[in-house]
Amino acid sequence: MMTGVQVIAKTAELRERLNAVRTRGATVGFVPTMGALHAGHASLLTVARRENDFVVTSIFVNPLQFDRKADLETYPRTMAEDLATCAACGTDLVFAPGVEDLYPAEQLTFVDVPALSENLCGASRPGHFRGVATVVLKLFNVVQADRAYFGEKDAQQLAVIRRMVQDLNVPVEVVPVATVREADGLALSSRNKHLSAAQRENAPVLARALRAVLELFDSGERSVAEAIARVLPMFSQVPECRLEYFEVVDPATLRPVERADVPVLAIGAMWMGTTRLIDNMRSSSDARTS
Amino acid sequence: MMTGVQVIAKTAELRERLNAVRTRGATVGFVPTMGALHAGHASLLTVARRENDFVVTSIFVNPLQFDRKADLETYPRTMAEDLATCAACGTDLVFAPGVEDLYPAEQLTFVDVPALSENLCGASRPGHFRGVATVVLKLFNVVQADRAYFGEKDAQQLAVIRRMVQDLNVPVEVVPVATVREADGLALSSRNKHLSAAQRENAPVLARALRAVLELFDSGERSVAEAIARVLPMFSQVPECRLEYFEVVDPATLRPVERADVPVLAIGAMWMGTTRLIDNMRSSSDARTS
Repeated sequence: MMTGVQVIAKTAELRERLNAVRTRGATVGFVPTMGALHAGHASLLTVARRENDFVVTSIFVNPLQFDRKADLETYPRTMAEDLATCAACGTDLVFAPGVEDLYPAEQLTFVDVPALSENLCGASRPGHFRGVATVVLKLFNVVQADRAYFGEKDAQQLAVIRRMVQDLNVPVEVVPVATVREADGLALSSRNKHLSAAQRENAPVLARALRAVLELFDSGERSVAEAIARVLPMFSQVPECRLEYFEVVDPATLRPVERADVPVLAIGAMWMGTTRLIDNMRSSSDARTS
Repeated sequence: MMTGVQVIAKTAELRERLNAVRTRGATVGFVPTMGALHAGHASLLTVARRENDFVVTSIFVNPLQFDRKADLETYPRTMAEDLATCAACGTDLVFAPGVEDLYPAEQLTFVDVPALSENLCGASRPGHFRGVATVVLKLFNVVQADRAYFGEKDAQQLAVIRRMVQDLNVPVEVVPVATVREADGLALSSRNKHLSAAQRENAPVLARALRAVLELFDSGERSVAEAIARVLPMFSQVPECRLEYFEVVDPATLRPVERADVPVLAIGAMWMGTTRLIDNMRSSSDARTS
């Protein structure tokens, strides 16, 4: 028997419930998600469970952050399985608002971190990180958690949210959680569901290329351009694969670095057919696939 | 003897102090200001005092919202008098941070309500309301008040902040407070200090014109264009006066209205020499000068 989890759909009801939780002095951990939960999300929920008295997760596919209508429409929705995952991870409360609850009127206010939002994924997804920052701040204001958990797999999102929290004095601690990978290195993603069997087999090329570029640095290469030039051919051999970007950047500013003398983030995005996949690895991280 | 008021300059110390206040169940009222306090601010502080257990005011001249360097540099700074005003109004705590406390790093995150920020005062002050919204949200996040008090004299600022609070689910109640006026109708403003005696004598023309346009509506005129055309000549007779804008708008959307069949906001900005003054009156308001 699966244990149950409380589900609340209305902002006002959630505020009331959480006020009662806070009044008794409990710490609140928050895991914002778009549902379609996989083992990566379970990892976030597990860490949140360990560090807080009360764990809230939100399941909300946020229209404001989708730049492609087709992506919004086909984004996987698996509420029943998601609630089972939450229950299994010991989550206390799931907040699953409708669009009309979180956006009762036209959204006229936007939160933006332009300096971190216009390159990498932002270059091909105009408005995406503005949509992310705006909805995350809304959710932060509704939940008022002590800690909020984000996966390192969405490195640019994590950088945007950390900077937003710092710059706007948001009273929450942002906790990054390591990327969870399949045995062959593929980073878990809700979008992996869209891959055909052949695409799935080839999809780990992104993780392998990121690892390869960091291994070049480990073995003494210092020129970022040289290292990238050596790994790029890995992608040209893969059917249905189109590389969108592959860069080595500063982990905080996301600006390109020329020489790997400092801790760096290798980050990339590629398409397998009509599915877009992203991944990243840090030079100083022990979260790399081995 | 003037009673004292506690002054805190550091965000971290303020958070700690207010956590203790909230823990004992006290409600917190917040009045954000740029100092140079006058009777309009005293009115905000008095209303806040009446409605809350604990009253915090901030005094911070926010560089992010100044579009003209000269305006920032000459903005009046009168800390000693301001503290006396706060004490006299029963304020519990003054938060007076330095620029380096509130902006310890380059501000990369911005809060913007473009639809309410680009006309009226926004037309001549690019970035102003973005700077206001951003610093007010920062202060809201530091103070975490139950209620925050804003003067109706800054009508566009009030509209921007109300919409920001609504759109971002900020857990604070925004309370508008009526404009305080001199006996001759001039709205109180920190910038009135900059007026010469002759300019001061002529400055009430803006309030008189706003009242005149509303009186035309009261007496049956419905065409906004016609009413405005009849009052505009009032400004051309005034030495050193240059009208920046004079409009009749919807109070919530700030969009121009053509016919005064609905509650409207008459709003204007003018220069007296090098000093910029703003004012507004609502058709349904009883706060009009008589």
